[in-house]
Amino acid sequence: MSKVDKKPLKEKIILGLDPGTNVMGYGVILVHGLQLTLLQFGVIQLSKFESHELRLKKIFERVLGLVDEFNPDEVALEAPFYGKNVQSMLKLGRAQGVAMSAALFREIPIVEYAPKKVKQSVTGNGNASKEQVAKMVMQIFKLKELPKLLDASDALAVALCHHYQGKGPQKSAGKSWESYVKENPGRIK
Amino acid sequence: MSKVDKKPLKEKIILGLDPGTNVMGYGVILVHGLQLTLLQFGVIQLSKFESHELRLKKIFERVLGLVDEFNPDEVALEAPFYGKNVQSMLKLGRAQGVAMSAALFREIPIVEYAPKKVKQSVTGNGNASKEQVAKMVMQIFKLKELPKLLDASDALAVALCHHYQGKGPQKSAGKSWESYVKENPGRIK
Repeated sequence: MSKVDKKPLKEKIILGLDPGTNVMGYGVILVHGLQLTLLQFGVIQLSKFESHELRLKKIFERVLGLVDEFNPDEVALEAPFYGKNVQSMLKLGRAQGVAMSAALFREIPIVEYAPKKVKQSVTGNGNASKEQVAKMVMQIFKLKELPKLLDASDALAVALCHHYQGKGPQKSAGKSWESYVKENPGRIK
Repeated sequence: MSKVDKKPLKEKIILGLDPGTNVMGYGVILVHGLQLTLLQFGVIQLSKFESHELRLKKIFERVLGLVDEFNPDEVALEAPFYGKNVQSMLKLGRAQGVAMSAALFREIPIVEYAPKKVKQSVTGNGNASKEQVAKMVMQIFKLKELPKLLDASDALAVALCHHYQGKGPQKSAGKSWESYVKENPGRIK
């Protein structure tokens, strides 16, 4: 008996998140050997909530809901490390922190990926447009039409990117920030 | 019977938080009429945890622990809206978001105060030093010595500030960001 024949195919569920302050995208995929299955994807519309606190509360509740529904093995987070100004970064940081809390609360490891890395990993081009990313995601999951909001396909892309990396969270978690800064000195303002 | 005599004194518990990425201060006070009682204060040392995710996890767990232990009516958050650079603001935003999540999760209203407002409210001087704030907090709560880490007295100060404002969270929550920006145009970079 060869090892290869008898090794059972591991299933893994990955929750991809693309947190923003106006819209948050999410995508859940099931990896079974080489087979990829789309379990759910969509967006949380936040702009309709006037209060900043209420937006954060909705992010937390929805991410916790997804975590409890799909029980993902790992969470992959699209996390820009730079932005226009300190004010927008503080708001983005809060949205990221709240989304991360729901995963941390349930003890699920989080791995972060810079947007460029996600694009590179899914399309082969680190400067691909959101539409190009969405089209590749459509092909991979055999979707018939583009999602209305590309934050949803972005979230699927980060889940895919995490799968393609094929590495556990222990290796990269916690080092992501430092390694990003090291690898992208020009992007940190 | 006069209204004043018969009106029962309301008790209110306020949890003050001063979230940072290296140290997070917390302080819990009980307000009973004019009487103020210090229930607990301290810091969460985060610098000993190497991983950024682990730091966030500790913040979430500790704040949730405080919330569940003291069941505060309101959470008062010291929240700077400006900083040195986008990178530090993203990290601060994450720490704030995670601390806020624990309160949001338990449906406890959050009110934010800018550092200057806290200092002004507690010492009468918006530019007071951390030591001046700590000395005033010592006097008010009859503490015999200064806390070792002034993040703890800062957190008590934000709880006090919230008490002195004497306003419910509905009034200011959600407007805080916008009103801060409006009131402090020079501070937003």
